[in-house]
Amino acid sequence: MRRMSTAYQDLVGRHQRLHRLSHLQAMASWDQSANMPTKGNEARSQALAEMGGLLHQLATEPALPGLLDRAEGETLNDAERANLREMRREWRAANALPQALVEAKSLAISRCEHAWRSQRPANDWAAYELNLREVVRRVREEAQCLSDSSGLSRYDALMDQYEPGMRAAEVERLFGDLRRWLPGLIRDVLARQSREPVIEPRGPFAKEAQRALGQDVMRLLGFDFEAGRMDESAHPFCGGVPEDVRMTTRYREDNFLAALMGTVHETGHGRYEQNLPREWLGQPMGKARSMGLHESQSLSFEMQLGSHPAFAQLLAPLLTKHFGAQPAFEAANVHRLLTRVSPGLIRVDADEVTYPAHVILRFEIERALVEGEIECADIPALWDAKMMELLGLDTRGNFKDGPMQDVHWGAGLFGYFPCYTLGAMYAAQWFAAMRREVPALDASIGRGELEVAFDWLQSRIWSQGSRWETAELARRASGEPLNVAHFKAHLLGRYLG
Amino acid sequence: MRRMSTAYQDLVGRHQRLHRLSHLQAMASWDQSANMPTKGNEARSQALAEMGGLLHQLATEPALPGLLDRAEGETLNDAERANLREMRREWRAANALPQALVEAKSLAISRCEHAWRSQRPANDWAAYELNLREVVRRVREEAQCLSDSSGLSRYDALMDQYEPGMRAAEVERLFGDLRRWLPGLIRDVLARQSREPVIEPRGPFAKEAQRALGQDVMRLLGFDFEAGRMDESAHPFCGGVPEDVRMTTRYREDNFLAALMGTVHETGHGRYEQNLPREWLGQPMGKARSMGLHESQSLSFEMQLGSHPAFAQLLAPLLTKHFGAQPAFEAANVHRLLTRVSPGLIRVDADEVTYPAHVILRFEIERALVEGEIECADIPALWDAKMMELLGLDTRGNFKDGPMQDVHWGAGLFGYFPCYTLGAMYAAQWFAAMRREVPALDASIGRGELEVAFDWLQSRIWSQGSRWETAELARRASGEPLNVAHFKAHLLGRYLG
Repeated sequence: MRRMSTAYQDLVGRHQRLHRLSHLQAMASWDQSANMPTKGNEARSQALAEMGGLLHQLATEPALPGLLDRAEGETLNDAERANLREMRREWRAANALPQALVEAKSLAISRCEHAWRSQRPANDWAAYELNLREVVRRVREEAQCLSDSSGLSRYDALMDQYEPGMRAAEVERLFGDLRRWLPGLIRDVLARQSREPVIEPRGPFAKEAQRALGQDVMRLLGFDFEAGRMDESAHPFCGGVPEDVRMTTRYREDNFLAALMGTVHETGHGRYEQNLPREWLGQPMGKARSMGLHESQSLSFEMQLGSHPAFAQLLAPLLTKHFGAQPAFEAANVHRLLTRVSPGLIRVDADEVTYPAHVILRFEIERALVEGEIECADIPALWDAKMMELLGLDTRGNFKDGPMQDVHWGAGLFGYFPCYTLGAMYAAQWFAAMRREVPALDASIGRGELEVAFDWLQSRIWSQGSRWETAELARRASGEPLNVAHFKAHLLGRYLG
Repeated sequence: MRRMSTAYQDLVGRHQRLHRLSHLQAMASWDQSANMPTKGNEARSQALAEMGGLLHQLATEPALPGLLDRAEGETLNDAERANLREMRREWRAANALPQALVEAKSLAISRCEHAWRSQRPANDWAAYELNLREVVRRVREEAQCLSDSSGLSRYDALMDQYEPGMRAAEVERLFGDLRRWLPGLIRDVLARQSREPVIEPRGPFAKEAQRALGQDVMRLLGFDFEAGRMDESAHPFCGGVPEDVRMTTRYREDNFLAALMGTVHETGHGRYEQNLPREWLGQPMGKARSMGLHESQSLSFEMQLGSHPAFAQLLAPLLTKHFGAQPAFEAANVHRLLTRVSPGLIRVDADEVTYPAHVILRFEIERALVEGEIECADIPALWDAKMMELLGLDTRGNFKDGPMQDVHWGAGLFGYFPCYTLGAMYAAQWFAAMRREVPALDASIGRGELEVAFDWLQSRIWSQGSRWETAELARRASGEPLNVAHFKAHLLGRYLG
């Protein structure tokens, strides 16, 4: 009763409402990818745009700044104060941009994305660049607005939307270390792996068998099928809401590994969502901490657990169960299949050793682009130079597998790429901390006793939601802020150990 | 430009918005039945309740009566005037009930429905009656409110929500005719069918085969799979939106007929929705005319077309294709299987000859109940008497297959039951009119040329949306208002011809 009329309680009610309406938006978006027939798209897009407008309106109501200020002066416990901090962060994000800019950016993006679908196969950089320039122009305006309201640099202000508290200077420090070290590591790993024969699995692998295998693996990984689903879509993702997680994957009958490890990856995202603090669901504090933290969960599942040599012993019998026996399914060979390193042009196909090279390249280019140090026309030459330097690959003239290979930039996503590798670093750091606390961890994995790892993640990460700023969360979970040494030790141990 | 600031245009914009937000509600409701895992239910219910409240708020905004009045005085064409008429009808429906009554009814319903799930198997009428009394009390208050605002009698006011323009006196006249005639017809049909041997299909019928059969039949019936889907749920229905129709069915491996004819039935609903006038989608005039008209489409598909002797010739090869050959799949036998008459206790299992008896019984009881002529305690005795009189069945003491067999009344649905049989009558009338215009109709059906029927329904019913009041729609489509003679002629022709 005490709180019925406080400003804080009013804000809690408003966020509850936003959460409930966002639920419908999340489900309709998932359905759009997983179920919707083609002719439903126009009505769906209109419905989602209407809801987007409504949610924006609710998030920018004139009463909010006053309520936030009044709530600061009210008697709140620590958790409520953390919730209020996150409420303010969300309010700032929703209110930083003038409506005209939001609309102009959205228009530039949808033109660029749409044209990219045909420009990429045609390798038509010149045409793509024209549209991208317009997107970059709007993103720079956006970055300026966010910078004005936050006091951060333009690139920092963009990155702060995805990875609150992280700064480009810190990313540069972390990535710089990796950048110098990585080319040598890749050379050494390639030399070593060239002496290890790998047996290729022989397909085809029926979709139904792959689906059943995926479900077995998700069960092994503790996914709660009473609080979520796995379906198919062209571009795999983890959507839905914490109470009902909707993941998707994509099957290729000639190769089961991509869908399998994609499923393991999305299951990490899914379990994070399923295990966010229930008593805070609907409040900003109940949400996943950041994109980098989210990726640290999917990579904890895919790389730390799923590509662990002992995990291959759990996978081997499941592969035989669903596809029949073949020499490639022997556990040691499965592990070699899952850890093969091969420098390639495409980021999403990259292994865990070469993946950071792709991210470092994107970070360096996008940061310079946002800060106005380079223009879109400079991208291909920079791309070619960095790909040669980092991975020894010649990409000249191959735009479609170069800067046109994915549409993040065309979709206005700048400041997001670092999250992928920050996530890989965090994941290695979590498992290093886990191993210090539970020396028997690796033996437990081999026996299929994965609860040791899940319990650690549950208590240190999942249950914490957005209770702490990211750096504090890392310190509380692992005793130190983000430290690239753990990721390097992980790669050295696994690939050259 | 002329209309940018008219009251009518303002109303059009508001209805467009309602349509877009309802889209999300419709999809989330479909998903709740077709996909949602159990633990998602609480969050889903909250999200749907939030949206329900929002839609109600938008439909009762204080500006609306003034806008409706101003729009009446504006220059509108005939279609716009029809749209305005339907806007007013929707406004009246949304505004007739005080919020406190809506909430009290909703509470009584959810208590009654929830308890019914265990009371029905326990045959516990006494406990059910206690909850039902509370629902009936709220429904009577609701009927009084609707009566006050419309000037109709209480039962008429309830029925008008589902079947605008239809009155109990008219239903009594139509049903009274049928009531006197039906018991004799049933006797004659049973006598005749007792001399016709029927070969039972031999199962089991694998779910996958049933699903593929259903899709073949839906294609035969012109369902547009680019604008809709068929999935599974415990209680089959046709949901979604006109732009993206979501139908569901339920498979039993021991009996394929129920799912097959359920699919045919829902496809009728689905095609009506898919073919509503596209230029009016989002406006009240673009909606299906009434529940009775909707049922007239599902029954046009299920009974007029799907149970037509010539349609059995189209089904026979499909059954063999999906289940393998067996004697029961010979066309004449398939038709006998689809037209077997057997008086039974359960409405939803009834054939087309005995179905009206169930509806007449419900109508007579619910009307007296709403008008205060009887009380809930009187239901079982009336039920027993009418079941004996209409179908010759003894139902004494068997409440679970009597008034507790479905939960319409417990869910506060009073005034809805007549729509089922009005729909059957309308369907017979449409096909009688079609036959007058296209004497070769029956021969066309046998050749699989169903477009004749679809074109007629498209031009007379589907494309008309809510352009006309129901009686006018019937006159324009078939030359006369609803006339029970066509339904009687249909039954006589098919079952005693």
